[in-house]
Amino acid sequence: MPGLVNGHSHAAMTLLRGVADDLALMDWLNNYIFPAEVEFVDAEFVRIGTELACWEMIRGGTTTFVDMYYYPDVIAEVVEDCGLRAYVSATVIDQRSPDAENASDSLVKGAGFVERWQGRSSRITPIYGPHANYTLNAEQLAATRAAANRYGAPISIHMSESPFEVQYSKDTYGMTSIELLESIGFLDGPTIGAHVVWPTDREIPILAERKVGVIHNPTSNMKIASGIAPVTAMLAAGVRVGLGTDGAASNNDLDMWEEMRLASFLQKVEQMNPEVLSASTVLTMATRGGAAAIGLEGEVGELRPGLRADLIQVAFDDVHHVPLYDVVSHLVYVTDEQDVASVVVDGRLLMREGNLLTLDTDRVAAEARELAGRIKAALEERNQ
Amino acid sequence: MPGLVNGHSHAAMTLLRGVADDLALMDWLNNYIFPAEVEFVDAEFVRIGTELACWEMIRGGTTTFVDMYYYPDVIAEVVEDCGLRAYVSATVIDQRSPDAENASDSLVKGAGFVERWQGRSSRITPIYGPHANYTLNAEQLAATRAAANRYGAPISIHMSESPFEVQYSKDTYGMTSIELLESIGFLDGPTIGAHVVWPTDREIPILAERKVGVIHNPTSNMKIASGIAPVTAMLAAGVRVGLGTDGAASNNDLDMWEEMRLASFLQKVEQMNPEVLSASTVLTMATRGGAAAIGLEGEVGELRPGLRADLIQVAFDDVHHVPLYDVVSHLVYVTDEQDVASVVVDGRLLMREGNLLTLDTDRVAAEARELAGRIKAALEERNQ
Repeated sequence: MPGLVNGHSHAAMTLLRGVADDLALMDWLNNYIFPAEVEFVDAEFVRIGTELACWEMIRGGTTTFVDMYYYPDVIAEVVEDCGLRAYVSATVIDQRSPDAENASDSLVKGAGFVERWQGRSSRITPIYGPHANYTLNAEQLAATRAAANRYGAPISIHMSESPFEVQYSKDTYGMTSIELLESIGFLDGPTIGAHVVWPTDREIPILAERKVGVIHNPTSNMKIASGIAPVTAMLAAGVRVGLGTDGAASNNDLDMWEEMRLASFLQKVEQMNPEVLSASTVLTMATRGGAAAIGLEGEVGELRPGLRADLIQVAFDDVHHVPLYDVVSHLVYVTDEQDVASVVVDGRLLMREGNLLTLDTDRVAAEARELAGRIKAALEERNQ
Repeated sequence: MPGLVNGHSHAAMTLLRGVADDLALMDWLNNYIFPAEVEFVDAEFVRIGTELACWEMIRGGTTTFVDMYYYPDVIAEVVEDCGLRAYVSATVIDQRSPDAENASDSLVKGAGFVERWQGRSSRITPIYGPHANYTLNAEQLAATRAAANRYGAPISIHMSESPFEVQYSKDTYGMTSIELLESIGFLDGPTIGAHVVWPTDREIPILAERKVGVIHNPTSNMKIASGIAPVTAMLAAGVRVGLGTDGAASNNDLDMWEEMRLASFLQKVEQMNPEVLSASTVLTMATRGGAAAIGLEGEVGELRPGLRADLIQVAFDDVHHVPLYDVVSHLVYVTDEQDVASVVVDGRLLMREGNLLTLDTDRVAAEARELAGRIKAALEERNQ
């Protein structure tokens, strides 16, 4: 089958998986994620964390992912070496981050990254990743769109993720998140909106008309209590909807199979209707639909002549696949990361019968464990 | 760690996993499940299906399960041979079923089963399984309680599962489901209530006072759109709450790890609060809490001297467990069935490093596939 398209991730955050759970958002961010990032995120952290994520994504059948984190050159180098296909963001954020001082610094550095990577690898697309409308003001958001359009680069942004974000937008601009983006011309170019949990009835048609690719992240939206996205309403309105895992710090894995079934289950129970968001619909969201959402329709997400050879083999040997009535049902409602046998991207074999061919997994595991040990000790000292 | 307690299942329905999905309840039942059951469920079906389920449960780290299906002697024999611990129900239902004609016939046959199995195996407890308050009338429910109490046997029943059931109870008896059961003395003895999605504020204290063991089945409740159970409210009221998978026809696997994380995720998003139902709370629900819910507290569900030796090893070698900050976080938010390495029940090794020791898995897989092939052909002919 075609490989899976993970439309939203922060790959290197695999290094923070399970560092803290079950906390209120601000406690989680201020006492765990931000302190760990401030002290530990550097080029080496990003290299190890992205390698760990690529290992997990290849093992689980993801062949394309959209990433947003720091040190995009390092991310792109890891992706180039391990053989995956990715959109790698130049993250733009108006605060001191591991690799920039503020919005204008991150914009300048982002332009350098985009220039270095455009056209360099057929598998890597440099994009802009403005963080959100509460970490960038309207002027900075518009400047990011202008920079992206200068290079013909797509944008990925957190969009209408939480009640906080929507309220912030209303308080600051007198408009909800997506109306704000529309009003400043931010949607005048290829845009990937991550999460989109709280679009209004007025905003959903904007998403369809502007061909915004919406990436639904059901695990993250449930685990950190962002809300239930109106997926069936968006699909009915013609919005392009794909799936993503978000980062492993709020998931806690990169398992697209679980995203598929959670997407289906969550709509069914919210609408009290078992017929909505069928197995075949969510399988499409994870493949062809995800490709369309990020602008790779006709290149990946399907198995047919003329497309890139991004494909995976799923073994149905495991007891949970016995017996077999319907392949699609099993793929969506039963399959997990460990059932994927082999993975090919761009015609190159990246995993053969469970054996990773392009990453030294022993080295990556050892480096990840060593670095996590230091992070754990530092957080324990800090939070004593 | 202690083995997992699956508090509600219909084990043999593994043979119907994926036979039909994404359908309205009555379409699913009337055009797929019931026709398949009427034509195919016999002692052989139950033997193969229960063996398949026991294989999957052992492989996934479940050491105790509560089952409700037909041909309980066959179920008990399979459990006895494969080494698991189980409550096996004599199902009582007022309709023609594969092994009885009506409620009184199933009560008579149930008594025979209970007499044959009480005291026969330390691992097998025969119980009564009255199906629900819409498939048995009040008199039949009371008669089942009386029969169970005659033998000192617990009861497992579908309880307040769906809006349909609650409405049926109101229309028929002028009372909601649990109030009806309380009013007829049905709760005067050990009772396991499966699902309990729609208890009222008046009913939750009844569940606590009567020490009803509630089994939460989040995957099934989402997939067939039964609703979101008020798990945190029940726990706060002192109700004993465990977890279950329900049958594989509405799940579609017997993965208790996924039940744990879905239980947590579902409460978090419904209450818009990431702090509720923490990893350690749901891990307790799947072990000690589940044991308490079914009446095995102090026998299983914990690792300490004096309890039965029901324990499992979970391997943290897989990429999705790297790195490790917190064991409980990983068990709940990442682990899947395939991470379980070894399983011991009652001191006997049932699986060693992934190898099943008490079931001929090749034979079971072959028999399951052959039987499912016939079921598939019959349903295709029927639904043409």
